[in-house]
Amino acid sequence: MSGSSFGKLFRITTWGESHGAGIGVVIDGCPAGLSLTPDMIQIFLDRRRPGQSKYTTKRNETDTAEILSGVFEGKTTGTPISVLVRNQDQRSRDYGDIAHTFRPGHADFGFFEKYGFRDYRGGGRSSGRETIGRTAAGAVASALLKEAGITVRAYAKSIGPYTVAEEDYKFSEIFENSFYMPNNAAAEQAAGYVSGLMENCDSCGGIIECTASGLPAGLGEPVFEKLDALLAQAVMSVGAVKGVEIGDGFRVSSSVGSSNNDPFYMDGGCIRKKTNHAGGCLGGLSDGSALILRAAVKPTPSVARPQHTVNEAGEDAEIVVKGRHDPLIVPRAVVVIESMTAITLADLLLQNMCSKIEHVRKIYTEG
Amino acid sequence: MSGSSFGKLFRITTWGESHGAGIGVVIDGCPAGLSLTPDMIQIFLDRRRPGQSKYTTKRNETDTAEILSGVFEGKTTGTPISVLVRNQDQRSRDYGDIAHTFRPGHADFGFFEKYGFRDYRGGGRSSGRETIGRTAAGAVASALLKEAGITVRAYAKSIGPYTVAEEDYKFSEIFENSFYMPNNAAAEQAAGYVSGLMENCDSCGGIIECTASGLPAGLGEPVFEKLDALLAQAVMSVGAVKGVEIGDGFRVSSSVGSSNNDPFYMDGGCIRKKTNHAGGCLGGLSDGSALILRAAVKPTPSVARPQHTVNEAGEDAEIVVKGRHDPLIVPRAVVVIESMTAITLADLLLQNMCSKIEHVRKIYTEG
Amino acid sequence: MSGSSFGKLFRITTWGESHGAGIGVVIDGCPAGLSLTPDMIQIFLDRRRPGQSKYTTKRNETDTAEILSGVFEGKTTGTPISVLVRNQDQRSRDYGDIAHTFRPGHADFGFFEKYGFRDYRGGGRSSGRETIGRTAAGAVASALLKEAGITVRAYAKSIGPYTVAEEDYKFSEIFENSFYMPNNAAAEQAAGYVSGLMENCDSCGGIIECTASGLPAGLGEPVFEKLDALLAQAVMSVGAVKGVEIGDGFRVSSSVGSSNNDPFYMDGGCIRKKTNHAGGCLGGLSDGSALILRAAVKPTPSVARPQHTVNEAGEDAEIVVKGRHDPLIVPRAVVVIESMTAITLADLLLQNMCSKIEHVRKIYTEG
Amino acid sequence: MSGSSFGKLFRITTWGESHGAGIGVVIDGCPAGLSLTPDMIQIFLDRRRPGQSKYTTKRNETDTAEILSGVFEGKTTGTPISVLVRNQDQRSRDYGDIAHTFRPGHADFGFFEKYGFRDYRGGGRSSGRETIGRTAAGAVASALLKEAGITVRAYAKSIGPYTVAEEDYKFSEIFENSFYMPNNAAAEQAAGYVSGLMENCDSCGGIIECTASGLPAGLGEPVFEKLDALLAQAVMSVGAVKGVEIGDGFRVSSSVGSSNNDPFYMDGGCIRKKTNHAGGCLGGLSDGSALILRAAVKPTPSVARPQHTVNEAGEDAEIVVKGRHDPLIVPRAVVVIESMTAITLADLLLQNMCSKIEHVRKIYTEG
Repeated sequence: MSGSSFGKLFRITTWGESHGAGIGVVIDGCPAGLSLTPDMIQIFLDRRRPGQSKYTTKRNETDTAEILSGVFEGKTTGTPISVLVRNQDQRSRDYGDIAHTFRPGHADFGFFEKYGFRDYRGGGRSSGRETIGRTAAGAVASALLKEAGITVRAYAKSIGPYTVAEEDYKFSEIFENSFYMPNNAAAEQAAGYVSGLMENCDSCGGIIECTASGLPAGLGEPVFEKLDALLAQAVMSVGAVKGVEIGDGFRVSSSVGSSNNDPFYMDGGCIRKKTNHAGGCLGGLSDGSALILRAAVKPTPSVARPQHTVNEAGEDAEIVVKGRHDPLIVPRAVVVIESMTAITLADLLLQNMCSKIEHVRKIYTEG
Repeated sequence: MSGSSFGKLFRITTWGESHGAGIGVVIDGCPAGLSLTPDMIQIFLDRRRPGQSKYTTKRNETDTAEILSGVFEGKTTGTPISVLVRNQDQRSRDYGDIAHTFRPGHADFGFFEKYGFRDYRGGGRSSGRETIGRTAAGAVASALLKEAGITVRAYAKSIGPYTVAEEDYKFSEIFENSFYMPNNAAAEQAAGYVSGLMENCDSCGGIIECTASGLPAGLGEPVFEKLDALLAQAVMSVGAVKGVEIGDGFRVSSSVGSSNNDPFYMDGGCIRKKTNHAGGCLGGLSDGSALILRAAVKPTPSVARPQHTVNEAGEDAEIVVKGRHDPLIVPRAVVVIESMTAITLADLLLQNMCSKIEHVRKIYTEG
Repeated sequence: MSGSSFGKLFRITTWGESHGAGIGVVIDGCPAGLSLTPDMIQIFLDRRRPGQSKYTTKRNETDTAEILSGVFEGKTTGTPISVLVRNQDQRSRDYGDIAHTFRPGHADFGFFEKYGFRDYRGGGRSSGRETIGRTAAGAVASALLKEAGITVRAYAKSIGPYTVAEEDYKFSEIFENSFYMPNNAAAEQAAGYVSGLMENCDSCGGIIECTASGLPAGLGEPVFEKLDALLAQAVMSVGAVKGVEIGDGFRVSSSVGSSNNDPFYMDGGCIRKKTNHAGGCLGGLSDGSALILRAAVKPTPSVARPQHTVNEAGEDAEIVVKGRHDPLIVPRAVVVIESMTAITLADLLLQNMCSKIEHVRKIYTEG
Repeated sequence: MSGSSFGKLFRITTWGESHGAGIGVVIDGCPAGLSLTPDMIQIFLDRRRPGQSKYTTKRNETDTAEILSGVFEGKTTGTPISVLVRNQDQRSRDYGDIAHTFRPGHADFGFFEKYGFRDYRGGGRSSGRETIGRTAAGAVASALLKEAGITVRAYAKSIGPYTVAEEDYKFSEIFENSFYMPNNAAAEQAAGYVSGLMENCDSCGGIIECTASGLPAGLGEPVFEKLDALLAQAVMSVGAVKGVEIGDGFRVSSSVGSSNNDPFYMDGGCIRKKTNHAGGCLGGLSDGSALILRAAVKPTPSVARPQHTVNEAGEDAEIVVKGRHDPLIVPRAVVVIESMTAITLADLLLQNMCSKIEHVRKIYTEG
C-alpha cells in the first residue's frame, strides 16, 4: 500500500490513471527560493509526449502542465508543488474488448489478483502515462541540481540490436533524431529496423543510458540507501525496465580485480580516477567521477496481432490489443529515466548536507 | 543520513563496523507467533561466514548470533528482534598502513569526503561484514515466507567466465561445492580458474541468481515500491553488486514483443504462463510464476599487488592491500542475495494483506 | 522538509495555499473495493466550509471537491485518490498591507525565517484552508473505518469559558447549533459570548472532544507509533491546537493509582472496564473501550484591532489585520479533528492486520 | 508494525524487553565528527535508573551503557550508533502470578489481543525499561543540539497536587531533591505526600515541564511534521503520559485573541516577543522564543493492593501486583521527556538545513 511516493527529503507522490480525469504529482521538500516556471516543466513533458514522430503512438495529447501550488512570484516557497496534467484524448472504447481479458506482458492479471478488480481503461494506473508525474518532478529536480553544478543527461544507447559504441557518441545529435540516440547514423539504421517491425505488427526494446556530471564525492546513504541502490529502485520502478546496471555493470562478473579497480591519481590538486569501471559509484557513494547507469527496456507488450491468453472468468482466450501503441517506448522513456535519476540525486544531495557536524555549524553558527 | 533501515512493515535496521565491538540488526514488524530459534539464524550466518573453503578469507570467526529481544518461549512476540554478533578476530594492525590512503575499488575516498574522516579498520561500515545483519534478518524473513508457502533459493550462476546454463542446473549440487553453483562440474572448472587467480594475487566476480516460488500474484506496490523496484534496491545495496536484472533482464533490449510476451493459459483451473521471460514480475507485481533475478558481482577490489592511488594528504601513492581477503566474494554473497530477496518479499507480503477491503473484513468482521 | 504526508499504509499528502489555484490531497493506500462518491467527501467539506453561520468568516466558497483518480465505477481501485478543490473567492488585496509585516499569533515570522520569503496571501500554506485536504481524506478514512464497525464523532465541548459537562451531553443536538456543541442551551450561551467578542473585535478558543467507538483492542504500534502518540501528532498538527489529552488527560496528574486504574470485568463473555479514565488507550494500544481525546484550540489570532509587531525590515510597527476572519475557529475545526482521528485510526487498523501470524495464514493459506 | 523507530534524519530505533537479555537503541543519521563518550550517555541513564531514592523502585540495576558501533577515536563516524544495556536484576518469579491475568492500567490486555500472547515478564516491551533506549539517544541528541547552541531542560512541575508556580522556579535546585522539582521546599511537601501514599499502597502522577532555549526560528516541517506535532507524538509515546500541551496549552481555550497573541518587538536588532503564550511555537514552527511543553503523567498503575480484573481465560479475578514498583514514575521520567524533546529537535534541526536554496549553495558551492 501507499507505494506512490519516492524520496526522503525531496519527496514526490504521483497519482492518476491513463483514462481518468488527469495525472499529477506532488513534489514536497523542494528548498525555497528556486526559480521555477511552467515552461521548465513543459520542456520535460514535451520530450515524453505522444505524437512526436511516426515511431510513437498517434494518441494526441498536449500534456499541458498546470502548477497548482508551491510557487509564488516565480520561486518555490518550500511548500508542496502540485502539478496537474488533464487527460484529453481518452478513447475508452478502444479498450472495451479487453476489459475482462488479461493482456500478455501487462500488469492486468496482477492488478486483478491484488485488488479484486481493475480500471481496465488503458491499463489504468499501470499505463505509461503514469510517468508524466515523474517527468514533471524531474524538471524540478534538475533545476535544483543545477544550483549545485550537477547536470544529468540520458539517451538511447540501443534500439533493439542497434547499439552506439562509446567511441561513436555524438551528444550534439541526441535531439536530432526520433530515438534520442547519440548518433544520427545509428538512429537511421534503427529507424529502418523499427519500420519493419511496425509493418509486422511487432515491437522492440532497447537500452537507455544516463550520466550525471558535477557530482561531489560522497552522495549516497549507507547501507540501504546507497546511491546505486536508490538509483536501481528509481529506474527499475519505471514500467518496462527489466534491468539496471552501474558502470561496467554485468561485465564486471567476468572481469578481474586488478583491471576492474580504478586507480586514483592527483590531477592538478584534484583527486581523479584513471578509469571509470565503477561508473562513478564506489561502496554506494559517488566517487567524484561521472555517474553512469543503464536501463534495459523491454519491447512494448501491446502488439496488434492475435495472442493467446485467459480472461477473468478463467477461460482460455485469444486477444488482439487494439488502440494506438508505440512500436517501442524507448524514445519517450529517455526523459523518464533522466528524471528518475535527477530526482534520486536531488534527494541524496539534500540528505548529504547533514553528513557532518561542520555542515551543521556552517548553517547555524556561522550564519 | 539514516540509510541503515529497509522495509516498511517488515523493517530491518543494521549497524556495526568490521572491527568494532560487533555487528547486528534490529528486525521490527515481524508478526507475533512465528517460531524462531537461534539455530535458524545461525544456519544462515554459517553460509556466509569466512573460512568455509580455501577460496574464502582465512579470517576465522564463528559469527555466533545472540537473540537479545523479541522472542519469548520460542516464538516471536511482535516486538523488535535484536540480533548481535560480536566481532572476534580483529587484526587492526593489518590495516594500519592503509589508514590514510584510499584503496582503489573501495568506499574509502567516498567515506572520507562525506564524513570528513573514517574508521579505516577493515573498511569500517563499508566492510562485507555489514551483511551479517542482513543475513540474520534473511533467516527470519524466510521463516515468515514459509508460513505463506514461499521459498527463496540463491546460487552462483557464474564464477568469472564460467557459467552454468539453465539446462545444466542440478539444484541438489548447490551445497556440494565451494561456490554454491548448481553444477559440481562447473564448480570444478571455476575452482581451477580461481586457484590461478590466487597464485596471481588477483580476484574475480560472478553472477548470483535467486528464484522464489510459491508467490501469490499481486505482490508489489505501484508505482515506486513495485516488486522489481524494491528487489533492485535491496540487491544493489549489497556491496560489490553492479547490476540487477529480472527475468530475461538485459536480453529484452534486443527481443521483440511478439516473442517476449508470456502467453497466459489455463492449466487445470490455474492461470499459468507458457514462458517466463518476465521472471515472474509484470508491471511491478508478481504474476504467479517463479520470480527470477540476477545480480552481477564485481571482483574483490582487495588484491595483494601494488596499486596506484592517492592518500588523504592529496599525494600520489602506491598501495599494497594486506590482510586476508577473499579471491571472490560470490560464494559468501549467495546467502546475502537470498536474504535481501526474502526480506523484500516478506515486507511486500505483509503490505499486500491490506490491498483490498475483503481482507479488512476477513480480519475484523469475520473473526 | 517533506512534512506534508501523514500515515504509513493509509497515507495522505496534502498541498495548496490559501490564495493559490487550489487545495488538495492525495490519499494513497486505501484498500480497493471501498464504495466512494464525491458526495461522501462533500458532506465532510461542507462541515468546515465558511459562511455556515454568522459566527464564521463571510468568505464565501463552496469548496467543491473533484475526485481526479483512484475511483472507478464507484469503488476505490487501490491506487492514489487525488482530490482537488479550486480556490474561488480570493481577495488578495485584503492582505496587501500585511505582505511584509508579521502578524502576531501567526506563522508569518517562522515562515520568513525558515524559507527566506513567504506567500503572504492569506497565510499561504499556514492558512486554515490547508485543512480542506485533511477533511476530504477524513471522509475516505471514515468510510473505511465503517467497514470494520468503527465510528468517530467530534463536537465542541467548550467555547471559551462555556463547557458542556458529560452528564449534559445530548448528541442529537450537535448538528442543531452553530457551534456543533452537544447541548443547544450551552450553545445559546456561547452565542451570546461570541457576539460580544465580535462587537469588541476580539476572538475566542475552545475545546474539541472526539470519541471513537467500535475499536477492536490492540490498535497502535509500540513504541513510537502508539495509538495515543499518533493521535497526538495528528491533532496537534492542526493549526491553533495547543494541547491534546486522552481520557482524563491532565487530571491524571493529581489522581492516585488506586482510583485512576480502570478495573476489568466480564460482561456476558466480553471483557469490559468499569470506568474509562484511560480514554480507551492503555500502553498505547486501544483497550476495547471508547476512545476519548480532547484538543485545546486557541483564539483566532486575526483580530481587527491594532496590534504591535515588527516588519521584515526589522522595524517596530503597528498592524490591523483586515480580511474576513472567524471570531472562533472551533466550529469549523470540529470536522478537522474528527478527520485526523479517523485517518490515524484507519492507518493503524490496516497496520494491525499484520500483527500476528494467524492473520497472515488467514489471508494467504485459508483463502 | 515496525513502530519502534522515530525521526527522519536523526532516527532512533529502540528494542528490548524488561526481562530479556537487554535493552538498546540504534541511532542512525547522527552527523559525523560529534564528540561522544560512554560517559555522556551514562550521565543521562543515571538520571532515570532505579534506586536513586526511597521514592523509586528498589530494583537495583546499574544500567551500564556499551557503545557497540558508530564511534571511532571519540567521534561519531556518521554510521549507526548502537547502544546496549544488559538487563541484570531480573526477578521473573515476581511476575509468575500475573502471567495470565491482565493488570488494570497496564498494556497487558492490549498486547494479548494484538499479538495473541505476550511476554508477561515485567510488562515485556511495555515496561518502563523501554525508555532506556530513548534516554541514551537523548544524550546523543543533546550533544548535537549543543553544537547549534540549543539547550533542553526538563523538571517536575507537579507531583500529585503539589505544583511549583513559575515565579517560584529555582532551577539550581532541580538536582537537589528526589523529584527533580525546581524548588526544594515544594519537593519537601511532595515527599510527605508520596510517603503517605506508599504506606497506603497507592501511587500518584504529576506534570513534567520541558523547555528549550537557543532555538533558531523556523524549526518544524509543515504541515504534519510541525514542531509541536512531532513533540506531541514524541512525548505522548512515553508510557504513562496522557496529555501534552505547548505554551499556555489548555488555558488558551478560555482566553481571547487580543491577550493570547504575543506582540513582536525589536530589541537591539533582535526580533522578540513581549509574552510567550505560544510557548515558542507559532504555526508549527519555532518562533525564536523559549520552547515550553508540559506532559501529564498518570499514577503508577502497579499498586500493591487487591484489584478486580479478568484473566486470559475470560474469568473475573482479583490481582495483587507484586514486584518492586515506583510510587510515582515522574522523577525518573523527567530525563525521558527531556530526551524525547532533544531527539525531536535534533531531527528538525537537521531537516531545516535543507529549507532554502541558499543553504544548498552554502554547502556545495561556497565550500
